[in-house]
Amino acid sequence: MLQSQLFTKTIREIPKDEESKSAQLLIRAGFIDKLSAGVYTFLPLGFRVFSNIEKIISEEIEKIGGQRLLMPTLIPKSYWQKTNRWKIFKELFKVKGKNGQEYGLGPTHEEVVVPLVQKYVSSYKDLPCYVYQIQTKFRDEIRVKSGLLRAREFEMKDLYSFHQDEKDLERYYERVKKAYFKILERVKLKEKTYLTLASGGTFSKFSHEFQTLTPAGEDTIYICQKCNLAINKEIKKQFPRCPRCKEENFRKEKAIEVANIFKLGTKYTKPFDFKFVNGKGEKQWVVMGCYGIGLSRLMGALVEVHHDNKGIIWPKEVAPFDIHLVKIKNQKSKIKEKIERVTSEIYNTLQKRGFDVLYDDRENKSPGEKLVDADLIGIPKRIIVSERTLKKNCVEVKERREKKSKLVKIANLLKTKSNKNI
Amino acid sequence: MLQSQLFTKTIREIPKDEESKSAQLLIRAGFIDKLSAGVYTFLPLGFRVFSNIEKIISEEIEKIGGQRLLMPTLIPKSYWQKTNRWKIFKELFKVKGKNGQEYGLGPTHEEVVVPLVQKYVSSYKDLPCYVYQIQTKFRDEIRVKSGLLRAREFEMKDLYSFHQDEKDLERYYERVKKAYFKILERVKLKEKTYLTLASGGTFSKFSHEFQTLTPAGEDTIYICQKCNLAINKEIKKQFPRCPRCKEENFRKEKAIEVANIFKLGTKYTKPFDFKFVNGKGEKQWVVMGCYGIGLSRLMGALVEVHHDNKGIIWPKEVAPFDIHLVKIKNQKSKIKEKIERVTSEIYNTLQKRGFDVLYDDRENKSPGEKLVDADLIGIPKRIIVSERTLKKNCVEVKERREKKSKLVKIANLLKTKSNKNI
Repeated sequence: MLQSQLFTKTIREIPKDEESKSAQLLIRAGFIDKLSAGVYTFLPLGFRVFSNIEKIISEEIEKIGGQRLLMPTLIPKSYWQKTNRWKIFKELFKVKGKNGQEYGLGPTHEEVVVPLVQKYVSSYKDLPCYVYQIQTKFRDEIRVKSGLLRAREFEMKDLYSFHQDEKDLERYYERVKKAYFKILERVKLKEKTYLTLASGGTFSKFSHEFQTLTPAGEDTIYICQKCNLAINKEIKKQFPRCPRCKEENFRKEKAIEVANIFKLGTKYTKPFDFKFVNGKGEKQWVVMGCYGIGLSRLMGALVEVHHDNKGIIWPKEVAPFDIHLVKIKNQKSKIKEKIERVTSEIYNTLQKRGFDVLYDDRENKSPGEKLVDADLIGIPKRIIVSERTLKKNCVEVKERREKKSKLVKIANLLKTKSNKNI
Repeated sequence: MLQSQLFTKTIREIPKDEESKSAQLLIRAGFIDKLSAGVYTFLPLGFRVFSNIEKIISEEIEKIGGQRLLMPTLIPKSYWQKTNRWKIFKELFKVKGKNGQEYGLGPTHEEVVVPLVQKYVSSYKDLPCYVYQIQTKFRDEIRVKSGLLRAREFEMKDLYSFHQDEKDLERYYERVKKAYFKILERVKLKEKTYLTLASGGTFSKFSHEFQTLTPAGEDTIYICQKCNLAINKEIKKQFPRCPRCKEENFRKEKAIEVANIFKLGTKYTKPFDFKFVNGKGEKQWVVMGCYGIGLSRLMGALVEVHHDNKGIIWPKEVAPFDIHLVKIKNQKSKIKEKIERVTSEIYNTLQKRGFDVLYDDRENKSPGEKLVDADLIGIPKRIIVSERTLKKNCVEVKERREKKSKLVKIANLLKTKSNKNI
């Protein structure tokens, strides 16, 4: 894409109403825009990152059998009343239609997915069953201050599993755990993320959260110094020793919950009277699990972890572009036409080879401004074409993560094969 | 995908609360499920069709320069008040947060996109600018009865363009018109869809709708018998003759509006005081256009146009799968293991060749039930493997659209190359 065509521009000033580093950088670099507290637009650069995260998550969830669907946002009051959450779900946004129908705006979808799956599942032969969606969710949070880390409107992946018994749920629960770590590995958050014991609600004693370390996090976790299992502060009083390795030493950290997995058991299948006929012809409650990943929150957490004082440093698999190609052209240069021509050729060739390239072709920006913008936006690889590099028939290549750049022969660069789209 | 794994099942009974043929078929075949009046879930089959339509639309919109973003659903009252639509937009769902903040749930996004683009555009050098999104929209309709054709919650592509002057808007408006016909051609609705003059609001005298002929349509249009331009009934009184070719003969038809394009002029830029500096250094109002396609409505219209008395007939480019592979296995057959083995081999090979295959591997369904289901679901190509076909080393291939099937040598079938993913 030509950067001159990108309608957003970088912003120099730090937004005064954002406390978290990730929100500040994402706004300044043109990835998101704040419409009101806790409500953001994903701008073209941000939407590209969002789509990359979405792709990784859906690939890994489909590998463990997830079938993708899209449930509605407008969930009628009667569904919420079945589970009593119309009263007790404090963060539910409520809206009333002209016809008198009241709806809760979906913050989670047990009340929709249970009666939906119930329509099609009656026998043990229909189980297990795994469905998921990636969707905008709504929560009427009292206090929002950390950009994408806690919002009123946000993007989420929610997966629901249905089983004959707890043993089968247990088995799938462990598969999801692995899939989640695979996702975290691909987006480059695994190193900073800890499997964390948290309270489990009514059915199972505990649930698991995936907590990413960052000072901007709202949670406090205690990490076992020996086996790395973490425990959420809210239940730490129950664990003088690590429940896994019996170690007594913990270190305290601030963290943000990017995902969670939950054994729901029959909590939501009972209110909807969702039973199946087992192998002996007897009716039994269906057993359930639910598994969430906050996509927009994960994007915020990524920036919390991957940035420096110049800007964002996107990991390769989620970056909005693979390469930031920067043309440095002095208007007085004798070879300015050559710079123009060679940069265009590199742009076209790299694109043909399957790379996503953002080409900074802007004429009204100084070299300094262009480099500051490139650092702020944070595309993993930067390629500069200038009079100086062309004299050596080279371009200057620099990884955003590294300090040093290197000169690469243009002829060699044009032979590079993409690791994608082959 | 193995059909035994698909959690939805086809439904024999015609849903009593759905008047339109498309809603009946989509529900019975397992593409959508009704949560409440005008509110539907896209089931796995439906989500696949939705994704295909989304892909076609975004490809064509990006060809004409559209930059994709994602704007919020929760739009604060203050934005709606700027344009006075908090009062006059009758179908706006309103919701109030615990902090007292009131929001309108986005049915369209002029109130968001204008101040957003305004942040980045100040000079004529920043124009024109085209942004779009594909998003869930909300409209508090009093009466909904036709499934996806008129819903309270629905999927829409909305594109907004920003220009220096009317001439530039005019030019882009014609490009969008062509892009829309390209989209309609790809989804196979072009033949039944008429460019239709409709009322234009305050700025331009007329807008254009894309009306697809179907008895389930809520609109009435008059089609010029000579040049095929149509006129919406609401403004037909102004046109005794066709405004394009001066013909007097029209035929009257029922139709559904699947898309529209609109010259907004300065209707929304004025309330937000959105001006740019022109080449002479003077400030001028930015001129705007907006362009919508109802994705979920288009999916409904597709089924209205493409079905027969047995079920849906999906056009190739939007079909949930390319091929429906059906195993017909008599449990008493001597070659039942061979049938199993050969069908699996065909399934694996076709998938490797890039085809999306739904494999009806179900053991508890009769051949008759399987064929009825295949016709209802409507995948364009059906391949049957049975004892009868294997005796000739063949499979039976039938296009959903055709009546006759043909026998194809398995060896030849396995050599078929996909027209996709190459």
